[in-house]
Amino acid sequence: MEQPLFDVQPSVLSGETSDIYFLRARDILQAEGLDPVVAMEVFPSRAGLLCGMRETMALLEKALPHGSEVWALSEGDRMQRKEVVLRIRAPYQSFGIYETAIIGVLAHCSGWATAAAECTEAAGGIPIVSFGARHAHPAVVGVMDYSAVVGGCQSCSSVIGARLAGVSPSGTMPHALILVMGDTAGATLAFDRHMPPDIPRVSLVDTFRDEAEESLIVARALEGRLSGVRLDTPAERGRVTAELVKEVRARLDLEGFKDVKVFVSGGIDPERIRYFIGNEAPVDGFGVGSHISGARPIDFTADLHEVEGRPIAKRGRVPGITPNPRLRRVL
Amino acid sequence: MEQPLFDVQPSVLSGETSDIYFLRARDILQAEGLDPVVAMEVFPSRAGLLCGMRETMALLEKALPHGSEVWALSEGDRMQRKEVVLRIRAPYQSFGIYETAIIGVLAHCSGWATAAAECTEAAGGIPIVSFGARHAHPAVVGVMDYSAVVGGCQSCSSVIGARLAGVSPSGTMPHALILVMGDTAGATLAFDRHMPPDIPRVSLVDTFRDEAEESLIVARALEGRLSGVRLDTPAERGRVTAELVKEVRARLDLEGFKDVKVFVSGGIDPERIRYFIGNEAPVDGFGVGSHISGARPIDFTADLHEVEGRPIAKRGRVPGITPNPRLRRVL
Amino acid sequence: MEQPLFDVQPSVLSGETSDIYFLRARDILQAEGLDPVVAMEVFPSRAGLLCGMRETMALLEKALPHGSEVWALSEGDRMQRKEVVLRIRAPYQSFGIYETAIIGVLAHCSGWATAAAECTEAAGGIPIVSFGARHAHPAVVGVMDYSAVVGGCQSCSSVIGARLAGVSPSGTMPHALILVMGDTAGATLAFDRHMPPDIPRVSLVDTFRDEAEESLIVARALEGRLSGVRLDTPAERGRVTAELVKEVRARLDLEGFKDVKVFVSGGIDPERIRYFIGNEAPVDGFGVGSHISGARPIDFTADLHEVEGRPIAKRGRVPGITPNPRLRRVL
Amino acid sequence: MEQPLFDVQPSVLSGETSDIYFLRARDILQAEGLDPVVAMEVFPSRAGLLCGMRETMALLEKALPHGSEVWALSEGDRMQRKEVVLRIRAPYQSFGIYETAIIGVLAHCSGWATAAAECTEAAGGIPIVSFGARHAHPAVVGVMDYSAVVGGCQSCSSVIGARLAGVSPSGTMPHALILVMGDTAGATLAFDRHMPPDIPRVSLVDTFRDEAEESLIVARALEGRLSGVRLDTPAERGRVTAELVKEVRARLDLEGFKDVKVFVSGGIDPERIRYFIGNEAPVDGFGVGSHISGARPIDFTADLHEVEGRPIAKRGRVPGITPNPRLRRVL
Amino acid sequence: MEQPLFDVQPSVLSGETSDIYFLRARDILQAEGLDPVVAMEVFPSRAGLLCGMRETMALLEKALPHGSEVWALSEGDRMQRKEVVLRIRAPYQSFGIYETAIIGVLAHCSGWATAAAECTEAAGGIPIVSFGARHAHPAVVGVMDYSAVVGGCQSCSSVIGARLAGVSPSGTMPHALILVMGDTAGATLAFDRHMPPDIPRVSLVDTFRDEAEESLIVARALEGRLSGVRLDTPAERGRVTAELVKEVRARLDLEGFKDVKVFVSGGIDPERIRYFIGNEAPVDGFGVGSHISGARPIDFTADLHEVEGRPIAKRGRVPGITPNPRLRRVL
Amino acid sequence: MEQPLFDVQPSVLSGETSDIYFLRARDILQAEGLDPVVAMEVFPSRAGLLCGMRETMALLEKALPHGSEVWALSEGDRMQRKEVVLRIRAPYQSFGIYETAIIGVLAHCSGWATAAAECTEAAGGIPIVSFGARHAHPAVVGVMDYSAVVGGCQSCSSVIGARLAGVSPSGTMPHALILVMGDTAGATLAFDRHMPPDIPRVSLVDTFRDEAEESLIVARALEGRLSGVRLDTPAERGRVTAELVKEVRARLDLEGFKDVKVFVSGGIDPERIRYFIGNEAPVDGFGVGSHISGARPIDFTADLHEVEGRPIAKRGRVPGITPNPRLRRVL
Repeated sequence: MEQPLFDVQPSVLSGETSDIYFLRARDILQAEGLDPVVAMEVFPSRAGLLCGMRETMALLEKALPHGSEVWALSEGDRMQRKEVVLRIRAPYQSFGIYETAIIGVLAHCSGWATAAAECTEAAGGIPIVSFGARHAHPAVVGVMDYSAVVGGCQSCSSVIGARLAGVSPSGTMPHALILVMGDTAGATLAFDRHMPPDIPRVSLVDTFRDEAEESLIVARALEGRLSGVRLDTPAERGRVTAELVKEVRARLDLEGFKDVKVFVSGGIDPERIRYFIGNEAPVDGFGVGSHISGARPIDFTADLHEVEGRPIAKRGRVPGITPNPRLRRVL
Repeated sequence: MEQPLFDVQPSVLSGETSDIYFLRARDILQAEGLDPVVAMEVFPSRAGLLCGMRETMALLEKALPHGSEVWALSEGDRMQRKEVVLRIRAPYQSFGIYETAIIGVLAHCSGWATAAAECTEAAGGIPIVSFGARHAHPAVVGVMDYSAVVGGCQSCSSVIGARLAGVSPSGTMPHALILVMGDTAGATLAFDRHMPPDIPRVSLVDTFRDEAEESLIVARALEGRLSGVRLDTPAERGRVTAELVKEVRARLDLEGFKDVKVFVSGGIDPERIRYFIGNEAPVDGFGVGSHISGARPIDFTADLHEVEGRPIAKRGRVPGITPNPRLRRVL
Repeated sequence: MEQPLFDVQPSVLSGETSDIYFLRARDILQAEGLDPVVAMEVFPSRAGLLCGMRETMALLEKALPHGSEVWALSEGDRMQRKEVVLRIRAPYQSFGIYETAIIGVLAHCSGWATAAAECTEAAGGIPIVSFGARHAHPAVVGVMDYSAVVGGCQSCSSVIGARLAGVSPSGTMPHALILVMGDTAGATLAFDRHMPPDIPRVSLVDTFRDEAEESLIVARALEGRLSGVRLDTPAERGRVTAELVKEVRARLDLEGFKDVKVFVSGGIDPERIRYFIGNEAPVDGFGVGSHISGARPIDFTADLHEVEGRPIAKRGRVPGITPNPRLRRVL
Repeated sequence: MEQPLFDVQPSVLSGETSDIYFLRARDILQAEGLDPVVAMEVFPSRAGLLCGMRETMALLEKALPHGSEVWALSEGDRMQRKEVVLRIRAPYQSFGIYETAIIGVLAHCSGWATAAAECTEAAGGIPIVSFGARHAHPAVVGVMDYSAVVGGCQSCSSVIGARLAGVSPSGTMPHALILVMGDTAGATLAFDRHMPPDIPRVSLVDTFRDEAEESLIVARALEGRLSGVRLDTPAERGRVTAELVKEVRARLDLEGFKDVKVFVSGGIDPERIRYFIGNEAPVDGFGVGSHISGARPIDFTADLHEVEGRPIAKRGRVPGITPNPRLRRVL
Repeated sequence: MEQPLFDVQPSVLSGETSDIYFLRARDILQAEGLDPVVAMEVFPSRAGLLCGMRETMALLEKALPHGSEVWALSEGDRMQRKEVVLRIRAPYQSFGIYETAIIGVLAHCSGWATAAAECTEAAGGIPIVSFGARHAHPAVVGVMDYSAVVGGCQSCSSVIGARLAGVSPSGTMPHALILVMGDTAGATLAFDRHMPPDIPRVSLVDTFRDEAEESLIVARALEGRLSGVRLDTPAERGRVTAELVKEVRARLDLEGFKDVKVFVSGGIDPERIRYFIGNEAPVDGFGVGSHISGARPIDFTADLHEVEGRPIAKRGRVPGITPNPRLRRVL
Repeated sequence: MEQPLFDVQPSVLSGETSDIYFLRARDILQAEGLDPVVAMEVFPSRAGLLCGMRETMALLEKALPHGSEVWALSEGDRMQRKEVVLRIRAPYQSFGIYETAIIGVLAHCSGWATAAAECTEAAGGIPIVSFGARHAHPAVVGVMDYSAVVGGCQSCSSVIGARLAGVSPSGTMPHALILVMGDTAGATLAFDRHMPPDIPRVSLVDTFRDEAEESLIVARALEGRLSGVRLDTPAERGRVTAELVKEVRARLDLEGFKDVKVFVSGGIDPERIRYFIGNEAPVDGFGVGSHISGARPIDFTADLHEVEGRPIAKRGRVPGITPNPRLRRVL
């Protein structure tokens, strides 16, 4: 994954996405002629995987004057509860209005990356693809899928997310294609006819028939070109079970389709992943949706700890810089 | 709240934010020369407040050809689990690639609006302001705060959200202002000097001193011009308690400051709101942050139920249109 | 249900099925020349439906000498915890060795009948058929199914139980028939060819294909002669869900098979029955297996309360007859 | 324990105890002229001790034609959940109607044996006697007590069970004997007068007096011939406690009756056994009733996996023979 | 119950039982020449029955100078959590050192009285006697039993408590008397010989024999003079059960001893009382020990709310007098 | 801690604090001319720290005639549940009436000492001071604080308890002093002016201002003479938190007050102590109140086990002396 390019939106730069009281504070300080150099420290409310730091840096590089200092952990680093992950030392007016945006970016991205990491840790090497684009507002689909890849996902389903993360987007076929074409094998053959050869042929086998039956029908129809099947059994049919995976695997093997992979999606989360692995279901890959895309953001807090070199802090905090040898100077 | 204007982002229109398999399905159907009129239905996975419908309509108005039909519930309507809230009847290729975006918008916005409604219901008439901008990615701060207002919030802290929702943004003063100026009363007097007269003077009274002590100091300093105080006691000092609110109220009243309101923020959620109300704490307004901004999206599902007039459905669904007399034709 | 004929087994009459210490006690009392008239009372350890009384009476009629008294509740009566349901006043030696058999019959039969009643109460009028023969030793299959009918079941699957209970045995078709014939529709047509016309044509639709798909295939094949389908989805496929029942019903109705009934079996118990009813699944009948056949027996206790007219009792009991106006003299 | 002789009941051989649909399936297949060789496999729904295999074999020996194969685990073997414990390869019509009886025998007997094994494991070498005859229908008392001995019980109370299991039946004296004779010491002396010398003199000491007091009275009366006392304190007197056992032991020892054993009965189950052992109560033997006799049967399932040599299986199962190296050919 | 006389101990008056910092505060204020009139308010940390007020008043009457005011609730009044139960307005030096003693008396006495009230409420009219003297330090046995009577007990076992509370002490006979005399009936006859006729003859019937057996032996021996029996079965014998009470009652009635009462002691608390009443055990009286004597004291807090007429309060309290219309002026 | 002198109260010696039935038993035995030598054993109902033995011995030394024996564990010894901690062999009449007082002293004192030991164990070396005098009746404040020191407390707040335990009483300053003087720094300076130099200057810093702010004000005012600050934040302000302790420590250190200690009080119990230590709060000492003073007494039981050399016991106990090699002869 190469270095992504994060553009700073004009609405962020202008302060429109900020809490209004930061804009008012800026106006008051300007009127009073106050612009001290301050040190602000940022820490999370719970442990997790830090994400959003590259996007944050893109903003700070635009905002901070020459001579400012930024110390930080890196994108994808583990962070402890209340650990300082970012320290900015600069004139307050240059970045005060961006407090909202900075900790907002970190909150959402770290939440997604941490949830993805929970899945990849549970999966112990079995690939995970982020399928959550459909459960997130399109304005954040890109950063959501980017964060999922930072958290360990092999790929993601959205085009924009894959581009940000520097991976190839991944997908099989939607139920809609099969319903419009009226037949799973027919739809898979059409996919095979029209798609470039490097795109794996993975058929979705729960639309019309029992999954095990349909897997065999499709595998026979593709005559060796089938890459895999995806099981996505709805809750109305009892969801995918470990036994179903084993049976589909066994029936494919019995007919000689040992190379056809079995992918599982639908309500997958770390607990479900552990269920499949604990029951020795031979899953070749998981698609994870709302566990990642709907992950709760990790709240961050930003505090001033120095004003013009003097240690200071609000009640409940310790005045002065909080030592953290893990921080590296990045600006 | 007047009709907001939702622009459709180019990356949405181009399909970049879509799951890639919808783009592939479109290419396959084009190659096969198939573009039947289909009926797609959309329903939520749990009950809540429907939000995002205006933004969805802006997209559909651009995408659908003349002669298409759209039936829907309205922005802000209550919806039941699995209730059909949107039905589109149109040529599949005209909107198939937007399935990701449509249910993504509804998922995130309905999640935020529903969480806001939980707070406003708990508060029983005491105003709520959305303070969650700092815990959300700036790309969705606007729609998040808009959704919070749809869910019953009186106002919100972000400029962009307030504009979308047609309300005035709301805020008091940040800790940073007080720390930079070194004194709460001084900061509040500066606020009073420089801000337009229609902006309420609300002081944040937990930065340096005990809240009750600071409230009286600020109230005396502003000589009648103080609108309110905001209590935001950090967890390190035991958070805001019902007894603290009562005591601040009593001490203000004892000195004649009966018009100074008491606002509460910091970790507020419906349970905490009920705690304050159940203990008869005289709160004049709540600021709610991550309960709204970090609300879990409400997953939506989109299913084809008709292809060229024929009832059809995947396994687990009933073929044909699902009757719902609450739907009204909107296109 | 007419009066069943319960034969007393020779091994019961001879005392072989008794606890050996009753036989020894009889020998000792004979040697001592003691045979007082005693009153023995029998009560259950928990509330339930009394069953086994007819079989008990068949034994007592054989055992007791002229002049004995028996007071009892009736077969199928509700009984309270510790309520006296049977009182025998007779010479001790005439029936002492049958204590084991009497309370054993009542324990097992009342356990089965009570479990059946739990199901029929949960089902609120939807017929229940006892399918538990396969989970019980064949030596008690008859009394088990008889007890199930006493507890409210409409019918049962075993021939012997149906005969004892005076009902027609009930069944659909086993998976084995379908597997041997290789096709569900074919097996159902064979059933239709060879079975007398008064036996309902009910097809088991989960052997090879998805249940909804198979239901339609069979219904079409039988051209109006299909009585019903039975859903018995195994746990490996997520068991039968309320949504599956609704969908099968809807798909049958859509094709005009409104008279084809939908029966459900597989792990059914009162909780599952309430789940289907609570979710408004249109079930036409339930098959209940091990909830009835594996029901825990209701332990009964037999105590002497009088010896030659004198009130007596062991520690922990009150000497003398326990009044119970519900008892009627039956011998 | 020598090889028991299990007679096959005529009602089992005739199919009367079978589910009626197996009889109908047989009639249909006969009418169609179908009698393929099939392989049926049987597995339990939970782990436990396999029992009932001897009785099952008695039936199969009568039913199967020459050339059939039976592979099985042995009576008393540990079995895992879903482990194949029995495989029959034979013409379907020769044994299809016995599916009900085969898995019914295994279910009930394995349930009893497994419950007995739970007790003997908890008791760690302290003998257990099955006292459950009074809580089971007399038609299964024999196989129940037989299964208890397979599960590790030293003996049982029923004559028929002891004969099946090849052990001597065991018992002390019933409350009824003591109540009829009016005195515990008197009843024990009568027992001593009239019973053969090889039957241990064990007195039941809770009928009229405190157990510790009565134990000493009886021990003194029997002048050295007392083998043991049985404590069976009813719930109305707080059941037997560990402290009671210790005190009776201590008082017997103080008067020199160190050889008189202390047996405990009444609501004994593995948890109670662990309670006594954990509290170091010197118990010499336990009588266990309804924990064994009322044990829930272990449901078994029988599936066809081959028809005329072709692997086959219903949905949810894997076609073809399930490998299990523990199976041995027994026919 | 007439007005008790509470002496103030010299060690209390001298301040020896006080927290030393009150003595130091007095010395400092004397050295500074400060002795303002203050108002002190006292409130409990949880709801309950107020007790100890008479003893508190005895101290205040000695301590306070003429012109002081005391407002209070009455001995035995119900009090709410945080309700002001006592307000003293007097020169601080006159009573400051007694804060420890005042709230200590109220804490312990209110704890005992509240626990007693829990029992008498549960008993619904059945008399309760406080038997807790043996579980409390003898220095507080008198006030403990006094408080129990304030809480609704009919009597108590200690001589000193009964005198303080103005009732007759109550007791039956100790196990020691019976063990020394070697026989329960003999001990009861000796009691009958030597005790004045107005003392009820209540025999303790669990020392040597089963309670039901011993009750009848004693009742017969006393030939009509037996007032009652006390059941005190130890945990080693399963404690007193509701069934035991019923059986003893029934056996006494069967022999004509309808006037002999049945008392129950041993681990009695409100839950056990409700158990006996809920199971309709005919108990004529309960002896309650450590539930009352070991009751957790109810912590009280004393706060200054006025100094020389000025409202004042520490953080966390509201300055000025707390209105409570239930308070009456008592000094 | 030197040997304390425990006076025996006249009301104890006279038997006034005894259960009346012991006095009656004495009268009956005198009338019958019975005064056998008996052995009485005393054991606790739960494990803990034995306390009250010195006071018990003071009573026994007065009561027992020459030739009596007393065997016992020592003050402060650990004891097991049901372990014999005291055995008296003496003529019954010499001490029978003191059973109430003996086990009452042990119950209360062992309860307090055990609760104190729970705190000192949790604190792992951080000093604990008993602050519970205000929650206990003044008649037992002395023995309560004595027991707390036996349980490991470094000191206590009451003068009388400290004298009994042979330690110096400990205390800081009450809120009342600060409220009367109107200012924390002023009160602390007055304390410093008037108290002897060996009494540590510890200021209570939560009366008027935020604790961190007030700590610095007082530390500056005392110019190096401040020994420590006590944090006692009320529940209305969220109680003392680990973060508050850390912050006060950090702010004191930042201004050079590294020698000023931080003490914590207010609702402290073992769980709270573990919370502070587990969160690495630098606490220099804890004040513990009602966890010690309100500790539930440990019930003791006294049983006769020998009468004139004969082993004897009531039902539920084993006759004769209970061996315990830990007992030593103390009289």
